[in-house]
Amino acid sequence: MRPTMKDVASAAGVALKTVSRVVNGEPGVNPGTAERVREAIERLGYSRNESARVLRRGRTSTVGLVIEDVADPFYSVLGRAVEDVTTAHGCLLLSGSSGEDPARERELIRTFCARRVDGLIVVPAGEDHSFLRPELDAGTPAVFVDRPPGPGLDVDTVLCDNAAGARLATRHLLAHGHRRIAFLGDRPSIFTASRRLHGYRAALGRLFDERLVAMRAPTPEGVRADLERMLALDDPPTALFTGNGRLTMTALRALRTREDGRRMALVGFDDFELADLLRPGVTVVAQDPTSMGGLAAELLFRRLAGDGGPAEHLRLPVRVIPRGSGELPP
Amino acid sequence: MRPTMKDVASAAGVALKTVSRVVNGEPGVNPGTAERVREAIERLGYSRNESARVLRRGRTSTVGLVIEDVADPFYSVLGRAVEDVTTAHGCLLLSGSSGEDPARERELIRTFCARRVDGLIVVPAGEDHSFLRPELDAGTPAVFVDRPPGPGLDVDTVLCDNAAGARLATRHLLAHGHRRIAFLGDRPSIFTASRRLHGYRAALGRLFDERLVAMRAPTPEGVRADLERMLALDDPPTALFTGNGRLTMTALRALRTREDGRRMALVGFDDFELADLLRPGVTVVAQDPTSMGGLAAELLFRRLAGDGGPAEHLRLPVRVIPRGSGELPP
Repeated sequence: MRPTMKDVASAAGVALKTVSRVVNGEPGVNPGTAERVREAIERLGYSRNESARVLRRGRTSTVGLVIEDVADPFYSVLGRAVEDVTTAHGCLLLSGSSGEDPARERELIRTFCARRVDGLIVVPAGEDHSFLRPELDAGTPAVFVDRPPGPGLDVDTVLCDNAAGARLATRHLLAHGHRRIAFLGDRPSIFTASRRLHGYRAALGRLFDERLVAMRAPTPEGVRADLERMLALDDPPTALFTGNGRLTMTALRALRTREDGRRMALVGFDDFELADLLRPGVTVVAQDPTSMGGLAAELLFRRLAGDGGPAEHLRLPVRVIPRGSGELPP
Repeated sequence: MRPTMKDVASAAGVALKTVSRVVNGEPGVNPGTAERVREAIERLGYSRNESARVLRRGRTSTVGLVIEDVADPFYSVLGRAVEDVTTAHGCLLLSGSSGEDPARERELIRTFCARRVDGLIVVPAGEDHSFLRPELDAGTPAVFVDRPPGPGLDVDTVLCDNAAGARLATRHLLAHGHRRIAFLGDRPSIFTASRRLHGYRAALGRLFDERLVAMRAPTPEGVRADLERMLALDDPPTALFTGNGRLTMTALRALRTREDGRRMALVGFDDFELADLLRPGVTVVAQDPTSMGGLAAELLFRRLAGDGGPAEHLRLPVRVIPRGSGELPP
């Protein structure tokens, strides 16, 4: 079915070796002959089997990316940045979504490694990555991004300063006069969620009240129930700090239907599209998923180019973008 | 470096063939021996080279996805649906963004085919896909989604009913009393943009006025300039129909700063996150990128399973979601 190099040789009336030279850009073919070979390639639609060729060279020119969910705007932007760097290095990107499921994450990584990706970029879901040890020992580098690997794995990481970001958000609300500041975070098993809780708690000091904290998967029902419970307290919160973009959007939707929720001050972790168009605009602590993905990919390609230095740990800064919701008074 | 099947055989004290039988799930190994082999595999971190194995079988168990931009919410949701179906079929997904550049699209497809993906799912950027002909002839199926291929390529397609959607949007605004309805569309070379213009024009009939139409890449500067020009007319538009999600968000941002723009009625093609939280909520004509990506992938796997029937052309329905902006009076 698929035309072979031999078919090209017969069509062009040359030896197989001549076709091979043209295809591989080797010297020693006269220009007229080379042109005839190229015409035959074009006419027959011949294409070299790169998968076989790269395997023979011991590399697949493929990078594996494991993220939480490619449909989540934060991760899709991060993924696009990884793709751009990967493409610029002449490699292809295999990607998969773990959906926060450690078993699925392990299965994806195992599959990628069995396909012999040259390297891995991982937003981890699980807390134990010892299964990666043999792959790292075999020379497949991995860079962890957004969250670190489980204990015992000394690989490159690109994280944002989660605790500092949460401190910034909480202090911003404190500076605007709030003393009752609630925190909605994702599951405490998620690294970023627990670091953000830590920063929030540190900024509040003696004002911390565990009744104003709720940590679980961001579902509309869960967020609504948590807010209802908190707003029914004798001393309800006047401000809210939401621990990621999904939680911010879910909380905004839940608050809209409550008279007592509409004037609640709000700062969200992670920027999102249209945050500036809502009324009031949504104040956020923004990280930069494009830099995050791009730097992770650059680190990986540095390893692939032979850099055997100690593991690098990049921590990217975050910044507050005030837009109105975080500046509302109590 | 990387442990081989031979290493596993020595570690387990068995013959190479025994290891091969265990790895490939073949019968004829006694349970105790198989257990010893599995222990050795686990201890050494052996993993079979699937890339070599699948190549020997003539398939790579890989699907190539070309989309416009994985960071765009519409395409990231579509991509996630393709990923889910691909994973369910035990295959991996290679993906790349064309950025609306036909040369980049061709390069991506060429690279995917050279890697011998089993099949392709393409949101095309270019208008000529004759370069795909040899791949199709060689038995690599392709499904085009969101937009059809260029002329002469009879492959499966999954599109939405663009013209009908634009007619719905325009009629919705007409029904709310508008007679001066502007259309902001993407570049006319993009299939969906030209079909949506067609539907808009058909619904307006004699009310059509080419001064109320602007079609170009969605940039803040371009959208602002187009709206300024239209709003400066003696008979300015009282309503706006935006041709995709990116244009809707860009137009909302541009209109916010204009006193005369704030009360303009608006219907956007494509739903987007937070459309319900804006004031007024944004009325949209919604298509379903999850169904689109999922159906395209299902079609591809049907072809891979041997379905050699005529090309299928699915056209998915769209629906109006009224939220306030499309119901404003002139």
